[in-house]
Amino acid sequence: MDYKVEKLIVNYKTLEEFKKFKEYGLQELSMFEDLEANIIENDSKSPFYGIYFGDKLVARMSLYQVEKKFDRYFDPSQDYLELWKLEVIPDYQNKGYGNALVEFAKSFGLPIKTNPRVKSAGFWLKKGFSSVHYDMERDRGENPLVWIPEGVKEQSY
Amino acid sequence: MDYKVEKLIVNYKTLEEFKKFKEYGLQELSMFEDLEANIIENDSKSPFYGIYFGDKLVARMSLYQVEKKFDRYFDPSQDYLELWKLEVIPDYQNKGYGNALVEFAKSFGLPIKTNPRVKSAGFWLKKGFSSVHYDMERDRGENPLVWIPEGVKEQSY
Repeated sequence: MDYKVEKLIVNYKTLEEFKKFKEYGLQELSMFEDLEANIIENDSKSPFYGIYFGDKLVARMSLYQVEKKFDRYFDPSQDYLELWKLEVIPDYQNKGYGNALVEFAKSFGLPIKTNPRVKSAGFWLKKGFSSVHYDMERDRGENPLVWIPEGVKEQSY
Repeated sequence: MDYKVEKLIVNYKTLEEFKKFKEYGLQELSMFEDLEANIIENDSKSPFYGIYFGDKLVARMSLYQVEKKFDRYFDPSQDYLELWKLEVIPDYQNKGYGNALVEFAKSFGLPIKTNPRVKSAGFWLKKGFSSVHYDMERDRGENPLVWIPEGVKEQSY
């Protein structure tokens, strides 16, 4: 099944949709405050991508391009994507929405890093992600998983 | 009630105790591999602190001192503590073990940063932690909460 992944815009409607997701936290509240205070315009672009079913947002993720100079994961050092808040609302799970978002992220051709919940590691491994060597100073509370395109490898330590 | 907080050592016994905690992930597996490969000695010091009830580990947290030059949260910039994996095993919850660990962390007199699960924010707010301004480039998937000793404030942005 083909799903259309869209870049979400920050407006009151999107923020209302976000409330349906479990991982609703400081990031969303901050967007809401910025909108209320007119620091950002209604209809600003957000770091979120999502999939709608009709007019209902049923899956989303946040993607942020980290600059090469901050890369501590990949060799050669390069821009990479940090992915978080991948989530599908309950009634729409196991229908390929999560998969479509991950494939979309891979389509940029950049390495991807995510920090999954311990319980979701199985999903990420199936999608070709793998564990990195744990470095406490770098990773602290994280369980980083990475997807590495051909020609790239993990930074040695 | 007074609980004795101890710095944990990395040995097979401690790693076995760690399996009782929900947040068992890459960090623990990495310690286990280092121990198996003799990269670290049995009885090395770990970044974990814990509280025993008899010979049973019932609460733990990881603490890491971040150097001033990496500080992006506090003003003036300074060494601070990053705290993660604070967890009390189910039968011992609501008896002050989590509280004892947080008070222990505060006793160093340094600012503390943590990235709590969305659902545990209430506990941290009661302990005097507060939200920072969300900065996507810095915080990405995190919901940072900080505890700030007197004379220190949040970095302005």
